[in-house]
Amino acid sequence: MHRLADEFSPLHFAEGRLELLDQTRLPGTERWFSCATVEEIADAIRRLAVRGAPAIGIAAAYGLVVALVDPDDPEPDPARRIANARAILGATRPTAVNLHWALGEGEKAFARLAALPLPEMAVRLLDWARALHADDVERNRRMAAHGAVLFAPGVRALTHCNAGALATGGIGTAVGVLGAAFRAGRLAHVWVGETRPLLQGARLTAWEMLRLGIPHQLVTDSMVGALMARGLVDRVVVGADRIASNGDAANKIGTYTVAVLAERHGVPFYVAAPLSTFDPSIATGAEIPIEERAGREVTELAGERVAPIGTSGFNLAFDVTPAELITALITEEGVLEPPFGPPIARALAIGRPSKRTSGNRM
Amino acid sequence: MHRLADEFSPLHFAEGRLELLDQTRLPGTERWFSCATVEEIADAIRRLAVRGAPAIGIAAAYGLVVALVDPDDPEPDPARRIANARAILGATRPTAVNLHWALGEGEKAFARLAALPLPEMAVRLLDWARALHADDVERNRRMAAHGAVLFAPGVRALTHCNAGALATGGIGTAVGVLGAAFRAGRLAHVWVGETRPLLQGARLTAWEMLRLGIPHQLVTDSMVGALMARGLVDRVVVGADRIASNGDAANKIGTYTVAVLAERHGVPFYVAAPLSTFDPSIATGAEIPIEERAGREVTELAGERVAPIGTSGFNLAFDVTPAELITALITEEGVLEPPFGPPIARALAIGRPSKRTSGNRM
Repeated sequence: MHRLADEFSPLHFAEGRLELLDQTRLPGTERWFSCATVEEIADAIRRLAVRGAPAIGIAAAYGLVVALVDPDDPEPDPARRIANARAILGATRPTAVNLHWALGEGEKAFARLAALPLPEMAVRLLDWARALHADDVERNRRMAAHGAVLFAPGVRALTHCNAGALATGGIGTAVGVLGAAFRAGRLAHVWVGETRPLLQGARLTAWEMLRLGIPHQLVTDSMVGALMARGLVDRVVVGADRIASNGDAANKIGTYTVAVLAERHGVPFYVAAPLSTFDPSIATGAEIPIEERAGREVTELAGERVAPIGTSGFNLAFDVTPAELITALITEEGVLEPPFGPPIARALAIGRPSKRTSGNRM
Repeated sequence: MHRLADEFSPLHFAEGRLELLDQTRLPGTERWFSCATVEEIADAIRRLAVRGAPAIGIAAAYGLVVALVDPDDPEPDPARRIANARAILGATRPTAVNLHWALGEGEKAFARLAALPLPEMAVRLLDWARALHADDVERNRRMAAHGAVLFAPGVRALTHCNAGALATGGIGTAVGVLGAAFRAGRLAHVWVGETRPLLQGARLTAWEMLRLGIPHQLVTDSMVGALMARGLVDRVVVGADRIASNGDAANKIGTYTVAVLAERHGVPFYVAAPLSTFDPSIATGAEIPIEERAGREVTELAGERVAPIGTSGFNLAFDVTPAELITALITEEGVLEPPFGPPIARALAIGRPSKRTSGNRM
């Protein structure tokens, strides 16, 4: 079940527990662990054992099921269990909107089950969570198919952070696109930006590139400018944690810098994200809350202090790439071109996950 | 002698040996070691135990003295010892031009001593090397005085890599300027870019900031774009390893990226370097040889592998910032403004170290 196959997923629900691949240990150790309580899932999200905007959303969806079936929770009222779980899980990380979207969808799904006895309620909510997970898998596939045609034989692409199978329920967003382009003969090489401070590129994307058999090399984040100045990068593709109505996209810290360099060097810059990553409630990226994490992630490396005692670190986890620097948005409903406002609104009207999962799957 | 005082230097010559502070161990350990042979000095330069363009030049100058006095060298001919030393030391690192400049100056100095008996020859060459070192100290001071006036009360500056006392014979180039600006009340805060892969910012510049009492915070290289987008950076000042006749400047990998971001955000971008860092033999930065180092510096962190086995790293040690992105060059002969060609030529005609050290000091 945990073998790396085409349908690899970093999270599974089984026997009332959420099983997670501990991504903080990769690539050295492939360790799975079980979460039997909402608090355990919240802790896994906070410490990035499960990360990536879509994967966090799916974990939160299963978290609502865990809330219903946890035998040690003293709270008898299922509705209050769900409300508590939503509060705890919703407070874990502020930037990725998929988390809040999934919790909102879950609460709606739960409301439709309120008249059922608890066991059936739990089974039906698990059906909903599994449908949401399966829907993400399917959306990843469509996004990859749409994105692959933006590539061409011989292309050397660059990606930042990890927007792969580890970050989603399926084949990934940016990495899903890279995999589809590679299989179609439209990709020769991937530059993997290591993505300090937590090295999701070096640890996770490199691991996925090996798994997909894609030729790749690792570079420090500081090397991207030199690569582009030498003409060694033909495309950039990254994921996103939240996209505003105008197309401004929050993603892992460093993404904005890559976008500025891409513009200077005329390199197309693509953001691949499912519609659940779009936040129609905000007009621009200025409204996206940016998580600030512990400075010690910067002053330490692999748990060992590298900066002198007395020096503190400043640690923004995300930055916002303005829409003007984005060549196109790759979604499951197609490739959206600028100006992004109208096509985003159209795509959300047609394909917003809430309509599909609530309509087709429940 | 090794205490950190105002006249701190990471290298000293004593009793026929070059003593070096092992910068690979900082900030955790302050270990000094002695080099009694040219090979030992070359090895120290290659593994970055001594680094920074000016400091490498000074180490190479002392290296020529070591070549003359090494009691275990079987070569009896002093001229051949000097030629061998120049070849060995000159092959250590390709980008920093100060190394080649110092070795060239040393050979000229030696040629003027060729008629003397060996002991006197060695004493006189040591005088020359000490004069070159003292000259660097003096030039750092003048550069700092010229640069400090470019700052203003409340300024938050950003620097990349280490261009401080550890990189030179004196107070440093970029860090010398920051120190002088701070003492003049013209600097409030320094953002220290950590400078992957070898973390000279986190390990060395942070250590110097503490020593100078300058308020500072460490950021990953990927965070500079977000800092600038938030309006938190008022000035950038960096050192250089080689500057072409037109002002194009090679410096530690990542500098070019910072310069591109500074231009986008209207942040003045300064390069501080002594005239020994200028290479009038080349027209533009395209002619500067860029050192490529072992990929394992990227795939490893503090000696431990972070990327999966099977993933290789690509490791350019420097990049070139085109003159068009540089607001001004801070030299010991004053602040040079664009277009840089004429003022660079003028400064070299007036203040080129070779004229001063060979004229005044020998």
